[in-house]
Order: sequence, then C-alpha cells, then structure tokens
Amino acid sequence: SLRINWQDGVANHLNPLWLRERCMSELTVDTDTKQPKMNPHDLPENLGVEEAGLIEGKKSLWVSFSDGHTSEYSLDRLRAELVRFRETPLQVPAYKKLEPRLWSGGACRMPEFSHEEVMNSERTKLALVEELLIGGQVLVHGVPQQDGEVVRFGQMFSTLRATDWGACFNVRTRPDEALAGGDAGLGAKKDLAYTPKPIGFHTDNPYRWPTPDFQLLHAIEHCTCPDGHAPCDGCQVMNFMVDGFYIAELLREEDPEAFDLMCQVPVRFENNGGDNGSALVHVAPHFELEDGSEVAEGSRPALRALRFSAKSGQYAPPLEPEKLAAFYRARRRFSELAHDPKHVLSLQLAPGSLLMFDNQRLLHARSSIAPTDGERWVQGCYVDRDGLWLNFERWRRRLGAGSA
Amino acid sequence: SLRINWQDGVANHLNPLWLRERCMSELTVDTDTKQPKMNPHDLPENLGVEEAGLIEGKKSLWVSFSDGHTSEYSLDRLRAELVRFRETPLQVPAYKKLEPRLWSGGACRMPEFSHEEVMNSERTKLALVEELLIGGQVLVHGVPQQDGEVVRFGQMFSTLRATDWGACFNVRTRPDEALAGGDAGLGAKKDLAYTPKPIGFHTDNPYRWPTPDFQLLHAIEHCTCPDGHAPCDGCQVMNFMVDGFYIAELLREEDPEAFDLMCQVPVRFENNGGDNGSALVHVAPHFELEDGSEVAEGSRPALRALRFSAKSGQYAPPLEPEKLAAFYRARRRFSELAHDPKHVLSLQLAPGSLLMFDNQRLLHARSSIAPTDGERWVQGCYVDRDGLWLNFERWRRRLGAGSA
Repeated sequence: SLRINWQDGVANHLNPLWLRERCMSELTVDTDTKQPKMNPHDLPENLGVEEAGLIEGKKSLWVSFSDGHTSEYSLDRLRAELVRFRETPLQVPAYKKLEPRLWSGGACRMPEFSHEEVMNSERTKLALVEELLIGGQVLVHGVPQQDGEVVRFGQMFSTLRATDWGACFNVRTRPDEALAGGDAGLGAKKDLAYTPKPIGFHTDNPYRWPTPDFQLLHAIEHCTCPDGHAPCDGCQVMNFMVDGFYIAELLREEDPEAFDLMCQVPVRFENNGGDNGSALVHVAPHFELEDGSEVAEGSRPALRALRFSAKSGQYAPPLEPEKLAAFYRARRRFSELAHDPKHVLSLQLAPGSLLMFDNQRLLHARSSIAPTDGERWVQGCYVDRDGLWLNFERWRRRLGAGSA
Repeated sequence: SLRINWQDGVANHLNPLWLRERCMSELTVDTDTKQPKMNPHDLPENLGVEEAGLIEGKKSLWVSFSDGHTSEYSLDRLRAELVRFRETPLQVPAYKKLEPRLWSGGACRMPEFSHEEVMNSERTKLALVEELLIGGQVLVHGVPQQDGEVVRFGQMFSTLRATDWGACFNVRTRPDEALAGGDAGLGAKKDLAYTPKPIGFHTDNPYRWPTPDFQLLHAIEHCTCPDGHAPCDGCQVMNFMVDGFYIAELLREEDPEAFDLMCQVPVRFENNGGDNGSALVHVAPHFELEDGSEVAEGSRPALRALRFSAKSGQYAPPLEPEKLAAFYRARRRFSELAHDPKHVLSLQLAPGSLLMFDNQRLLHARSSIAPTDGERWVQGCYVDRDGLWLNFERWRRRLGAGSA
C-alpha cells in the first residue's frame, strides 16, 4: 500500500485498488461521463503500487502501478474523500449534501411560500427544496384550486410517484352523506382517512415497497376561520405535523435500547388495496438507519427513514416474551412522545394551501371533521426523493448559491 | 401472558398486547377496512389477560382483557401467524407470497409471451407477473414498434417510475455517426450505455434512492439474424442476463465472510445527471438482506435487493487495510462469478421484443455494437414493485388460481 503523511501529522495507508478505483485517465474512465469502464475483476488480483511521487506545483500525486499504468490524483480530493467519504463524489464537479435539521413543534416555524413566487423564480424553487430537505416540510399559499394542480406542482420538483389509486388521491369527506368514502371515480376505495374520524400520527403507505417519499396535500375546497384563529366554530378540522426523526432521537436519548428495538424488530404493514380486492404487505422495522455506520467516526448512525401507521397494522412478530414486551414499551413511548402537544405543529389548511413534506420522516395527523365544516376536498400525491436532490444540485449550481 | 398448548405438543405464550393488536372487534378496527383505530399509547400500559376459553364448535378463542374488553380469535389464524408471520396478513381475506426461484444461465429457459395473448387474457397477464416475481424476467414478442409503447405496456402491470430522463429513455446507438450519444430531444444526455462499447453486468441507477425496481427494454428498431442463430455477421449485438441473487448465494456458499462484506460495506454510487449539470449520490452496500432476520427460524436471511454497477463508480470507503483488502477480494469474486459464461443467459432482441426484469435482482449486460448492425433503437422504462404485487394478488383471486 501507499503511505501518505499529511502536513497536519495524519498518515493514511492507501490500498492500491482503492487508489486505482479513483483513476481518471482515459484508460480507466469514459472521458465524457467519468464513468469507469472496467469491471472489478478486470484488474490484476494483486495490483500493487510500484512508485509514487508528488508533482511539483500541482498539489498532485502520481502513482505507477504493477500493471504498468500510471495515474494522477489531486491531493485535495484524496484528502477530502478520506475525511468525508459520503460527501466527496468523483464523477461530478460539485456537490452539496444537506443535513436534516430536526425540530420540535413549539420552536418550529412552518416555512411558507407564495405560489406566484415559486412559479416565477428559480431561486424560490431552490429555497423551497432546501427547506424540504432540511426541515422536511413547506406550506405554499395561493395554489390554483383546480383538479390535478397538485400533480403539476409536484412535478416541478421531482418525478411523480403514482400508486394504484392513480396519479393523485382525493380526500373528500362529506360527513353524514352517502358519498363519504372517497373518490367515486375509482369505485368505493375505502380508508380511515376518508371518514370524518380523527387520524393519529402516521406516515403514508408503509405497506408499499418502495414507500412514497414526499407527500403533497392540496386544499381545493376547505372552510376558513374568518378572524384567522383556527380552529373556529365553522371550521374545526386541523392538521398536525411532528418531526419523527426528532421524536426518534428523543427516544434514543431517553432509552437507547428502546431505540434499537425500533430499528431491529420488523413489523408487518398491510393494506387491502382500498377495495378489499388485493393485498399489499411489507415487513420492515419502524426506524431505518443509514447503511454502513462503521464508516462514521465515533458518531451514531443517522436515521434514514421512518415508518409508523396504526391503521396499517404494524403487527409485531412473535418474539420471545421479554423482547416482545420491551418492544411494545418502546413503541408505546414513541407514540406517546409523537402525540405530545409540545412537539406538534398545528395548522389549518386554507383554500389553495398546499402542504408538502417528507413522508419517510415527518408524521402527520388530522383532527375529526365536524359536520359544520362543510365541503372539504383535499387532493394529494407523492413524488420521489432522488428528483429533489437532483433539482437542488442543478438549481444551486445555476444560481451560484452556497459553497461547492 | 396467555399460554396455548396446541394439539401437536407445541406451546406458545401470547403477550396480551400482541393478542389485542389482532382484535377485530368494532372497538378496535374500522369494520369496513379492518384498519386499527387506536394508537399504540391508547391502550393501558400493563394490559393483562383476565380470562380466556375456547368457543365450542368454532375453533375460536375468546379472551377478556384487564380493561374490560373481550376479543375473539380464530385459532387457525393465530397458529398460522405464529408459524409464518410474514405470510399471514390480517386485514385481507387471502394472500399468496411468492418466493424467488434462483437460476443459472445454463439451466434456465427465458419465459416467453406473445403480446397479443398478454393483451387479450388476464390469465396470461397473471402468468407473466408470476414469472417476473419468481424468476425475475420475461420476454414478450410482437410488441408494436412504436414510440411510447414500452410505457403503455409497463403501466398495464404497475405504476411507472419516471426519472429526470423522462417517462422513458432511448438507447439509440448509431456508431460512427455524429448522433451517437443519446436522445437528442433531451439535449446531450450522456451515458456509457449510449455508445457502441460493451457494458459489463450491472443494475441500473443504483445512485438513485429509491432505486427503480423493474426495467423494461423494448426493441423498436433492431437487426435480426435470418437463420435464427444469433449473433450473426449482420447482427452482432447481444444482451446478457444473470441472476444476481443466484451469484450472491454462490458467494455465500463459497465464502460467507465475503458475502457478509458485500452486505455491510457501503459503497458510493454516483451520476452527474447525464449532462454533468447535477449530482446523484447514494451510499449503500451491494447486497441488502430482508429486515429482521431474527424472526426466521434458523434459516439464513434472504436477499431483498442487490446493486452493482461499475460505471456508477461503487467507490469503496477508506476502511482499515485488512477489511478493505478483503472487501475488494469479495467484490472481485462476485464480479468474476457474474461474468462466468456458465451462469449467463444470452439473447438477442428482435424487432418488437420487450424484455422485462427485476432491476434489483438481475444484472444485465450488452456486447459491443458493430457498425454493420445498422439502426438500433431500444426504448426503456421502469415500473414500481408494489404494483406488481398488487396486480398479482388481484388477478390471482379473480381467476381463482392457486391456494389462498
């Protein structure tokens, strides 16, 4: 291996294959795309470093390998990757990885945007995506109250994640009317969310794999509270948001074993297809951690996704008695913390409001709907995560925002 | 807890919360959808069983709990869930979980279907989905050679997984022409696959999270070998498929530690957005196992997904020297086994052929394209996994196929 002594006293032993994997010469990569051309078994099994040296005036290193090839490396790039492996991609000229900023209801302000500004300004679009990726939620005002607008809006930011319910779903609750029960066009699809009953904190569709990433909810028809103080007599329905990652971290602080059980015990999420004509079943733990925690230096593995939904069953497996009892205590505590009003952000949708949030991080809930609330038509859809990352990076570069 | 002694001598201790979670009374679930109405913290923390007994003539159990509620349970259902937790959902009347059947090239026959039959028969659609979920691949003949047909075909089976490349992508290679390099409509998106060069075995888009599940490739324009023996002089390009799960299991047999490293070491997959204008980065191990292996009785955790793509970088992290060297040996061996001709299924697309396969299980590769192969236009797209499961179960029930 090759030993590098950095000026700050740190030393690294670099594996020859690790170095060669990073070679950017024409022999190794397609020069247009920087995509490697060789398969892992195309290089000699015992590839070694023959010689190496610094290139004067270039902050670069040359390395000649035992198969006769010589590569050149930027020392800054090598060092950056040794320190921040996840944030130092090689096939791209710039990259910014956003870290989530966890929040508790009391201390949190919902980031708000006007639809007009979003439509007219790429900078506002960038700010919106940045909020979504950091805090997990945004509220947009003044979105045209039209059928399908939520899909058009979502597709400005990422690719649509349709389901068997269609491109979007309609939560259209008319209490005390025979119509209660969802989108008539689809033929009697049923879900608890399509009734006036309250729904506890949950993420959507944990019974799907892959699970929809970001959710949009657009209030096409909705009551309002005239003096701005919601709820009011004529408009009682409220929406609630809580940062599931924040709650999970509270649990980790309070009881690390409880947190571990929520990461380890697979539960069964279910759905009958809405019309009882099929079955969707996904077995997975409530919490999902970033892969390969062993590369993080001493730090705790970060949360990557979270799924929690009482109505989807989340049935526990038949574990041995003590472990199962501990798991139920852990989940009960998580549910209790999530529903604690001090962590919750309450809001009331207004006609034309659009709420967009990370469905694998935030939990959402809804109060009961009063008969006096009148017509309520909320249209929702999902979009994929990767498109948000892609547009964030594209718009960030185009607008010259932030550091590389 | 409640102790049940089954007639075959097995005894189970049932946790009161585990039992209550399975209560199907009106107090607990919405009777229309069977969705539970209570949050995990809504029940008493120390819920106990007060009394229980068999209901004569019904193969049922009644249980009265310490909060005064009484529930009834089917003994068959309880037993089934204790034995096969993953395959015994409660909110649905029937469910069949298909298990993958791994294959090696020599012993494998590609399942083939005619487009006309698929269009005219739900039974053929069911057979096609079943093949996809068990063997991971199907080939359909006679698909109309029209732009967009691949998307229409895919959407009969599941929801479309679009990307920033659009609803579909066009692999249109015209060697020795200035046009080489992809779909002109998108403005110079570039990828190794859009050149006449050979591409080693890979899965698509491991740099996306979520990763596209199933891939469709439709040959709109393609050369043919007149006497049916491919390749031939006028049509040299070949496609290759290998069952990544089969190869991974070979590795597990041969060297369990190598297999574990492929499950544990996170590598960095990258893409520059195709036009070098953005960045997609996903860090994950090559192999992904089913969650919660601790519930499987003595068996080895099954593979759930696999990602492998030399051109996407799959850069290894800076691990400690011995572990990194062992990882490179493991990956080299996997790559070697995957490219071993005895495990590979070779095929040549014909005009109107459509290949559909599990992109998180099968690896695909392509030979180089000869200038004499002429025009080649392959259009591809992706669809989601959950829609395939949903349609499988829906069609299976409707056609009364197989057992519940």
